[in-house]
Amino acid sequence: MASFDFVVLGSGPAGRRAAVQAAKLGKSVLVVDNRTQVGGVSVHTGTIPSKTLRETALNLSGWRERGFYGQSYRVKNDICAADLSARLGKTLEHEISVLEHQFARNGVKTMIGWGRFLDSHRITVSCSTGDREAEEVVEAEKVLISVGTHPYRPKGIPFNGHNVLDSDDFIVTPNVPRSLTVIGAGVIGLEYATIFSALDVPVTLIEPRDSFLDFMDREIVEHLTYLMRERGMALKLGGEVSKVRFAADGSPVCVLKDGRQVGSEVLLFTAGRMGATGKLNLDACGLTPDSRGRLAVDPVTFQTEVPHIYAAGDVIGFPSLASTSMEQGRTAACHAFGEQGPAPDQCFPLGIYAVPELSSVGLTEEEVRAKGIAYDCGIARFKETSRGHIMGISSGMLKMIVEIGTRRVLGVHIIGEGATELIHIGQAVINLGGTVDYFIDNSFNFPTLAEAYKVAALDAWNRLRKLGEPAAALEAVPEAKRDAA
Amino acid sequence: MASFDFVVLGSGPAGRRAAVQAAKLGKSVLVVDNRTQVGGVSVHTGTIPSKTLRETALNLSGWRERGFYGQSYRVKNDICAADLSARLGKTLEHEISVLEHQFARNGVKTMIGWGRFLDSHRITVSCSTGDREAEEVVEAEKVLISVGTHPYRPKGIPFNGHNVLDSDDFIVTPNVPRSLTVIGAGVIGLEYATIFSALDVPVTLIEPRDSFLDFMDREIVEHLTYLMRERGMALKLGGEVSKVRFAADGSPVCVLKDGRQVGSEVLLFTAGRMGATGKLNLDACGLTPDSRGRLAVDPVTFQTEVPHIYAAGDVIGFPSLASTSMEQGRTAACHAFGEQGPAPDQCFPLGIYAVPELSSVGLTEEEVRAKGIAYDCGIARFKETSRGHIMGISSGMLKMIVEIGTRRVLGVHIIGEGATELIHIGQAVINLGGTVDYFIDNSFNFPTLAEAYKVAALDAWNRLRKLGEPAAALEAVPEAKRDAA
Repeated sequence: MASFDFVVLGSGPAGRRAAVQAAKLGKSVLVVDNRTQVGGVSVHTGTIPSKTLRETALNLSGWRERGFYGQSYRVKNDICAADLSARLGKTLEHEISVLEHQFARNGVKTMIGWGRFLDSHRITVSCSTGDREAEEVVEAEKVLISVGTHPYRPKGIPFNGHNVLDSDDFIVTPNVPRSLTVIGAGVIGLEYATIFSALDVPVTLIEPRDSFLDFMDREIVEHLTYLMRERGMALKLGGEVSKVRFAADGSPVCVLKDGRQVGSEVLLFTAGRMGATGKLNLDACGLTPDSRGRLAVDPVTFQTEVPHIYAAGDVIGFPSLASTSMEQGRTAACHAFGEQGPAPDQCFPLGIYAVPELSSVGLTEEEVRAKGIAYDCGIARFKETSRGHIMGISSGMLKMIVEIGTRRVLGVHIIGEGATELIHIGQAVINLGGTVDYFIDNSFNFPTLAEAYKVAALDAWNRLRKLGEPAAALEAVPEAKRDAA
Repeated sequence: MASFDFVVLGSGPAGRRAAVQAAKLGKSVLVVDNRTQVGGVSVHTGTIPSKTLRETALNLSGWRERGFYGQSYRVKNDICAADLSARLGKTLEHEISVLEHQFARNGVKTMIGWGRFLDSHRITVSCSTGDREAEEVVEAEKVLISVGTHPYRPKGIPFNGHNVLDSDDFIVTPNVPRSLTVIGAGVIGLEYATIFSALDVPVTLIEPRDSFLDFMDREIVEHLTYLMRERGMALKLGGEVSKVRFAADGSPVCVLKDGRQVGSEVLLFTAGRMGATGKLNLDACGLTPDSRGRLAVDPVTFQTEVPHIYAAGDVIGFPSLASTSMEQGRTAACHAFGEQGPAPDQCFPLGIYAVPELSSVGLTEEEVRAKGIAYDCGIARFKETSRGHIMGISSGMLKMIVEIGTRRVLGVHIIGEGATELIHIGQAVINLGGTVDYFIDNSFNFPTLAEAYKVAALDAWNRLRKLGEPAAALEAVPEAKRDAA
């Protein structure tokens, strides 16, 4: 029986980072993955494909140039399934080869097959090679469960792989439907809904709750809501689906509990994902997942209730981002082998690749209020910046939350193209203890969207000044905030 | 005679910021500008038009999408002068209206006309309204000279406004020539040469010296050199022009001192600019410009030799960037009226909007070596990042220079799309005293180009480790540097 220091179940962002980290520490590492290729959901049906689809849609539709050339401007008039697929294939191939090379270089062994626990230290891996089934038992000193999630498929939705789809079906053979209904205004639902809206597909987004993206700053979400409605998307909040029927032509119709009905060529269901723990035989190792298949862990060490078994990535729930999963995997591997892990993040960015992008770091205004911190906000609109004029941008904003007294930056929230890149400037200033003065005292390249940090900082300072705030840089405040009173 | 606390000559980035700052301090301010509209070179013939031209060229040529769709991909096949001009007009109009509104809101008076010194406190402004010439003398407690520069036009170059042009001629009526020769590989020459090369115009770039952009990190300049040559640009370094003759068809031919000859439909001369001080009658106020029309100032207060006369912006020379000019103007105004100015920048970013962009903050590798600091570098290539795969990027890099021992980040140098935005992350870490560990310990949104900071930091750490560097975060080093040995 083969024996390893570390067996990693799943090769997504968490598993991959953990495996390479353990290998760098001199440990023998086996990665087990049940797909035909490594990479996990991130590479195959999640992060990478959806972001590639987004980039393709924005390029071919000419979305970014419409500010100048008008709403009817299109680079390509008939965008078809082949256009969407072509680029996906290339990107996936590239990502997988980078990952395989990384495993090979670091001596990480891989097995393609289903792993299930025999007991807390032994795992049976079932591989099918051609028409032969083989089973092998491996022994592990430490284990990481990083199997990710799969789409939640409730019984009431008549998934058919044809016009009622989950997000896996949807991305494997992306098509451009004549109309689209998306159920679930979570990150995945919003990304697909807004991408297809950018392709001029009429989209209806149905969310059972009365609000969405509740972990993001409300003002940013309201900006997104406005933009989605402006371009004709129908947003049905509080819209619980009681059943899905099919019209005479075979197209799906959602019937909502309040009597509303929504028909479209394709229905995409994205409301929730399940931890992919169903086949792991977790009973045998002493673990019990929650009703959504997820595992509870120690938030610092990423140990499960069974101390030598760790879990990381989407399988442990929020925030379920590739970026945070990587850090979790690395932290788990360091802890497992007695190495000092990375300093815990003071705050990490959240990125949502909708059209437009949203990104956030630090506290939201709602969180600041709940904590009772005295604060004020500064706002910059991208259309007020020269870079915005040049790019023909008419929407997007940066919001900065500043503590009264200490002038510390508590949070930065951005909506608009480039948000996921720009957020890292605010992240650095927050995590290195900078204040709003940093943005006032430093030069920014001109013209850039990053200038929005300066405009927002000056806006915040202007407000603080009116409160009689002591002001080291007070004289510097008002001149650059173009649209201050 | 009208009297003002502050008279500002020129309404470009330096003059504008200074004027508004002084107004916010309660001072009476007059801005004199000799163009028919405010804004200076930056708005009319410099920063804004060239960056708008760049954006138009990249959009219409489909430049950013060629990584995926091939070198022959074009969004628009016949890009003509009208395409280039349409967007310029809109952007300029927008910028000017924002600026006029800002002056009006802050009570800054403006006069359109030529200012010249009567003595060090009195200035005559000549205005022509229709066919009437009017002169008015104004009195100033303090003066700021922020008149900018105009293109240097040496006698040997037969400028004709038709096919032998300076950069002002060139941008006022931009055209797409069948071939283009650019003399001068400075910032302006490089920007135009690479923009027109992106439009598939055959471009020859002639530089009399053997090197160019000497204030930038050499490795970044070499990367640019490679990319320019790869797309067929001819780069003639050490190419001093002895004369320009015209071929039989009237097109200009540059004859170099070493015997080489370069013909093209249009010749653009960008080698140098002159301070626009010629008509200011500086003798009368006791100032003497250098041979290139530039004024010397105290680098902290921006005072000239005559203490109540300040100078800021391009007229004082390097770095001649809109971003730094704004800070200079604001600093001068604060000093003039006894207010504490902004904290001096520890380091400000340099941005060059060539295709691709270059941007830099902190020390170059050459400067670090000259200072004798023990250092090592980390490199990330954009094509190694997932965001790079998704965007189809095949070039571009981020270089991070780290001090051995302290692990302080000394400089960051970037070439590639988005460089001018991304540099601000490194700027924040450098100016807030962060070390290379910042990038190792923090999460970055995935997929982003900003991830290149993490890859470069891990590369640097890997090298430092081999030197036996004490390593708080050592175990964290190697796993994410995908292509480390």
